[in-house]
Amino acid sequence: MNNPIGVFDSGIGGLTVVRELLRVLPDERIVYFGDTARVPYGSKSTDVIQKFADQIVKFLLSKEVKLIVVACNTVSATALDWLSSRYSLPIIGVIEAGAKRGVKATRNNKIGVIRTRATIGIKAYTTAIHQLRPGIEDHSKSCPLLVPIIEEGGDVELTHLALTRYLLNFKQKDIDTLILGCTHYPLIKDEIQQFMGEDVKLIDSANVVAHEVLNILNNTGIGTSQNINNPKHLFYFSDIPRGFKQLSKRFIGYPISYTKVILG
Amino acid sequence: MNNPIGVFDSGIGGLTVVRELLRVLPDERIVYFGDTARVPYGSKSTDVIQKFADQIVKFLLSKEVKLIVVACNTVSATALDWLSSRYSLPIIGVIEAGAKRGVKATRNNKIGVIRTRATIGIKAYTTAIHQLRPGIEDHSKSCPLLVPIIEEGGDVELTHLALTRYLLNFKQKDIDTLILGCTHYPLIKDEIQQFMGEDVKLIDSANVVAHEVLNILNNTGIGTSQNINNPKHLFYFSDIPRGFKQLSKRFIGYPISYTKVILG
Repeated sequence: MNNPIGVFDSGIGGLTVVRELLRVLPDERIVYFGDTARVPYGSKSTDVIQKFADQIVKFLLSKEVKLIVVACNTVSATALDWLSSRYSLPIIGVIEAGAKRGVKATRNNKIGVIRTRATIGIKAYTTAIHQLRPGIEDHSKSCPLLVPIIEEGGDVELTHLALTRYLLNFKQKDIDTLILGCTHYPLIKDEIQQFMGEDVKLIDSANVVAHEVLNILNNTGIGTSQNINNPKHLFYFSDIPRGFKQLSKRFIGYPISYTKVILG
Repeated sequence: MNNPIGVFDSGIGGLTVVRELLRVLPDERIVYFGDTARVPYGSKSTDVIQKFADQIVKFLLSKEVKLIVVACNTVSATALDWLSSRYSLPIIGVIEAGAKRGVKATRNNKIGVIRTRATIGIKAYTTAIHQLRPGIEDHSKSCPLLVPIIEEGGDVELTHLALTRYLLNFKQKDIDTLILGCTHYPLIKDEIQQFMGEDVKLIDSANVVAHEVLNILNNTGIGTSQNINNPKHLFYFSDIPRGFKQLSKRFIGYPISYTKVILG
């Protein structure tokens, strides 16, 4: 099936998921929607998030996508089941995929999860992890300042001080696996690895979800039959703030063309 | 005129303006709208901000306000003239008021301005300052991480490190007046004063705009004739995120009742 794969996020972070999809599935076309006019979702309530997510899914369906990746952890936590029950195409979230890889990776059954905020979806990873293996000790920590620090350039000293605030406790808990529960975190993966030490396995949900999509395409036979160089991807954002060109390049790794679309 | 005063902001920060209005004008009723579902505005483009601001003004007019305070620096910088030309009631922004007080306060004609982001409205304070006194040397600095740090509780060490990053240059420029160009900043006024030193005069736009409103009410004769204890203020927000009760209390100084209203 040569239709594109839809990917959406509350903003720009989902581009790290696109980067991994392009690496793992180089022949597939991507249609991306980032809701930059209404970011962040993390502090919004469930009904607002469901309404926004529904508008985005309808937009992606108008682009004839065959599968949708919800690259946003907040939407994955609060609206994935709700979306899946309303639409017939496969809709993949980042949380279950990340939890699965985390459970597979841990040796001492102690997993940490870092997230954006202690708001809605707080139990989503815990629930997913315990459904896979009930005995696991999981520790969750919200790190609300990491996203703004990353978006403002990732100042090394500020990043380190924020990591110290947020992650020191994880070192004392002896976790051996850390799930990066936000699509921004791959950009400071090296700093996190350095802070936690080389023995802690980091689970990057962008990478994990790309392999999940690969499996689904293989199992359902809806992968593309085309074998073209540089398939044309489409990037839509609900707002193009100043400095966006540089910022998007940092997230996806190369300069992209994009179109502004206002929803709602 | 016993109609209420309307105040709006992209989110919760404008509550520091309400706090000052209540202090300076204890008999006036306030209707507040905070666009918490669509905050922050600082990274949005002008047409999006104008559209959102127009929706909010229409909402406040439906509450029969006699005057509107635009407590948001971004809206004041990008949409105030546009709004004033469309509506006949007085619409007051924070920038001109802050600039006026700053120019009045400086002795050495060197003024600093701190703002949320180096995006739109970057020249708004400079323009306002130079219209009042062309010879003034003004220095502007965007401090994008201060708002998230304040909203996450104002960790002292992180605040200090961020202030060092942002304000060190101001100390070398020998400014004697610093305009706090964001309604969040009064919450870390003490830390900023301590960092800049006691000789630097801080201009808190919340306080300045409250006195501006007092003047307008006196000059136009539209102040309330009522003299009632505890007039009933109304607070509307487009979303009520978790933890909002505590956060709003920090901004306005006491617990408030509020109603959720979705615009657009």
